[in-house]
This record gives sequence, structure tokens and C-alpha cells, in this order.
Amino acid sequence: MAQVWAVPGGHVPFGGTGGEPQFTSFDQLCVLNTTDSEAEVLLHFYYEDTEPVGPYRFAVGARRIRHVRVNDLIDPEAVRLDRPYGCVLSSPVPVVVQFLRQDTRLPGTVALTGTMAHPVG
Amino acid sequence: MAQVWAVPGGHVPFGGTGGEPQFTSFDQLCVLNTTDSEAEVLLHFYYEDTEPVGPYRFAVGARRIRHVRVNDLIDPEAVRLDRPYGCVLSSPVPVVVQFLRQDTRLPGTVALTGTMAHPVG
Amino acid sequence: MAQVWAVPGGHVPFGGTGGEPQFTSFDQLCVLNTTDSEAEVLLHFYYEDTEPVGPYRFAVGARRIRHVRVNDLIDPEAVRLDRPYGCVLSSPVPVVVQFLRQDTRLPGTVALTGTMAHPVG
Amino acid sequence: MAQVWAVPGGHVPFGGTGGEPQFTSFDQLCVLNTTDSEAEVLLHFYYEDTEPVGPYRFAVGARRIRHVRVNDLIDPEAVRLDRPYGCVLSSPVPVVVQFLRQDTRLPGTVALTGTMAHPVG
Repeated sequence: MAQVWAVPGGHVPFGGTGGEPQFTSFDQLCVLNTTDSEAEVLLHFYYEDTEPVGPYRFAVGARRIRHVRVNDLIDPEAVRLDRPYGCVLSSPVPVVVQFLRQDTRLPGTVALTGTMAHPVG
Repeated sequence: MAQVWAVPGGHVPFGGTGGEPQFTSFDQLCVLNTTDSEAEVLLHFYYEDTEPVGPYRFAVGARRIRHVRVNDLIDPEAVRLDRPYGCVLSSPVPVVVQFLRQDTRLPGTVALTGTMAHPVG
Repeated sequence: MAQVWAVPGGHVPFGGTGGEPQFTSFDQLCVLNTTDSEAEVLLHFYYEDTEPVGPYRFAVGARRIRHVRVNDLIDPEAVRLDRPYGCVLSSPVPVVVQFLRQDTRLPGTVALTGTMAHPVG
Repeated sequence: MAQVWAVPGGHVPFGGTGGEPQFTSFDQLCVLNTTDSEAEVLLHFYYEDTEPVGPYRFAVGARRIRHVRVNDLIDPEAVRLDRPYGCVLSSPVPVVVQFLRQDTRLPGTVALTGTMAHPVG
């Protein structure tokens, strides 16, 4: 477990086919909090051509998970589709973070990829 | 190797197409036990909106592997399809754990994704 | 880098479609040896229902990579298709190991999944 | 974070279908630099049958990411399609590196796979 996790390879696919929300294209961060304290996590997004944006905030309850679609993050600003990004998640308690992408840009197809995020500290 | 492993991003796809069992949609936990002792492993599932459920139990023999489909876990309760979850696996001896998802929701297609689980301790 | 790496979730898909060898279904182990010594690596395969089989042997030259399809391993015995396995790779020098699966069981489709192997020691 | 990262399983798919650049087949290295110093990173490519080639160089600004397609690396020489490779990335400051492959060899399909690179030191 760690309190800071990094994902360098973010990129929400542009466009999707099939029914929403189950066949939407998305990037997703999956957070597991096994502790007995609620975790108010902070996210910062890094880009190729501008200063980082954040913090984005969401809570993961004690003994709970939370799967957050990056597409749904809008405060302080929406994460644009088809724009390469990386992100760093910080938590006040140790958590585990996994990254998942679903790509349905092509009709009748689903592509998936993912990896555990990298524990920074 | 480690005795505790975590997977934050579980989600058994809802629905599958093609023949069973080879083309069913599933999430899978793959456990490798290279030790000379049988490992009775314990699984706890974490959810977004309720307390954790477990332990689920299964054995991995000495010098054996075991690939368990999450869909097949029914005791103490079935893991519902299309419900986000995370899980923690605990073993009395050091093991290695890998996570795999097969998604066949769309006719004539297979999507795969996976990652090594995160070693917690 | 490490001298021992583990992959718990092996399973060569049964059957493939499309031209060989580029569209065959396979599991693959990718080894990077950045040292100045040739690495004669040893592989042991673990199964659900029988004792481990090995060693399989192959060499990775100094400052070389080697991508080995599990389907191609035949000595001391062929690794059967559609049979769950795990494997442990041991090297006399530090290397890095990645696992990849290509699944072309369904006509006109390719599914890929992979992960870094787990460094054991 | 680490200053040296390794990817053993590189292989840019040969051929792609669909519009460029979004549906080209590619291997990609995604680098996140959260430090306050620009990172001039060095890449060395390892092959099955010849000495390593490099360094390739590119910069990742302070507090920036960079997603580089291996297909686009041409200096000191182009990385050939359909040729197995491994690579090692070295950075003067700590970074995080993720690997992604997109395979569109078959018409109307996208396959994705990826993993965090392995932190060497």
C-alpha cells in the first residue's frame, strides 16, 4: 500500500460506440481503501504542454472501493478527451490504485488495457 | 512473493457471448504457490456501498497453481456481475497473484486485460 | 532487476485464426539481459494437478533480449494448450521479464493482455 | 519513482488499419516528470541478434508528461516494425514510465495492452 500513486499513460479515447454507460470509452482509476478511515484523495493531472491541474477530490470510505471514470471529473476543469495526460493520486491513508482503459471507438468492438498504478511513496 | 495481495479494480462484465466456459466473461485470480506447504487462502471483497464480505476460502496445493474465476465464488455469497469490487487475498505462505479479465459482452469479440496484483505485505 | 521472476496466470489459448506465426494464439515470456554475461535461464512450470515440470532452458545473450513463445517449449515436455499454468524463471544474472498473451481464437479478432512478471528475488 | 526503467517486451505491430494517427499500430512509452527540472531522457534499445542501439533522446519538461511512439524514433536509427526489442530509459531525475501497445493489424479492430515499466534503480 502507499499514499501516493502515479499513472503516466492516461488518454481517454475520443468517441465511443454502443450503449452508455457500459460501452462508453473511458479511463478509470480504481481505489481500494482497506483502512478504518475515510480517505479524501487528491488528484493532480499533468499534461504535455501546460502546468498541472488540480486538485480534483473524491472520497473513498473506510473499508470501501471507488472506481472513478476520468471522463467524469469536471472540477476544477473537465479532463478533455483525446488529450494525453498523467496523474498523481495522494491519499491521507494507505490505499491501492489500479488503472483501466476501455476503448469502444470502433463499432462492435471493445478493447481493454490496464495496470496497477505505480506506488510512489 | 508476499502473503497479502490486493486488486482494487474488480468488475465481472455483465453478460457474455460464445460458448461456455471458454468464452464466458469473467474476472480471474491466478495464484502460484511454489512452497512445500498447501496454502488455504482467504479472500475479502470490498464494495462501494457496503461493508466487506468474506472470507471466501480456497486451497492452493504445495507446488501448485490455482486459477479461480470470481464468478464462481458463492460462499459466503455470490459476487454479483456488473458490480465494482476490490479484493484482498491473504495466504499463510508466500504466493504470487495475478489478475485477469475476459470480456465477451459483444458478439464475436474477446477483450482481455490483466495485471499483477499489488503485494501488500 | 532480479534473478527470479514469477508469472501465476499462464494459459495458452486453445486454437487460433489468421496467418501463422503472426496471428497464432500464444503466451510469451520476454527477457531483457542488459548485463555483459550471457544468461542461461531456467523455467519451471507449475500446474493445478501435478508436480512442477522443468527445467526448460534457453539462453539470452549479453546485452540481448529474447521473446519466447510458451507454445514453442517442448523439452522436457510440450506445454499443452488450454491448460492453466504458472511459471518461475531463474537467471544467473539480473534480468527483467514481461509476460504477453495474444488470443486469436475468434475469427478476425486479436485480443492482447500482459503484465510485467513479478520479481521474486 | 526511479531514474532507470526497463521494458523487455517491445514489438511494434507490422501494419495497421484505420485512420492515422489515432488508429495506427504503435508501441508507446509514457513518461511522467513531476519534478521541477526538465528531464532529458536517454533510451537504449536491445535486440535479439545485435548490439544495443542508442541513445535516443527526448525531453520531458518539468511538471510535464510525454507520450512517445516508438515508431516515431528515428535517430540514431528507426526502430523497425515487427522486430522484437527491449528498451531501457534513463532519466537525470526520478520519473515514472508506462508502456502501451495498440494493435490495429486486423480491419475494424483495436487491441490494447500495457503495463507499468519495471523500475530498475
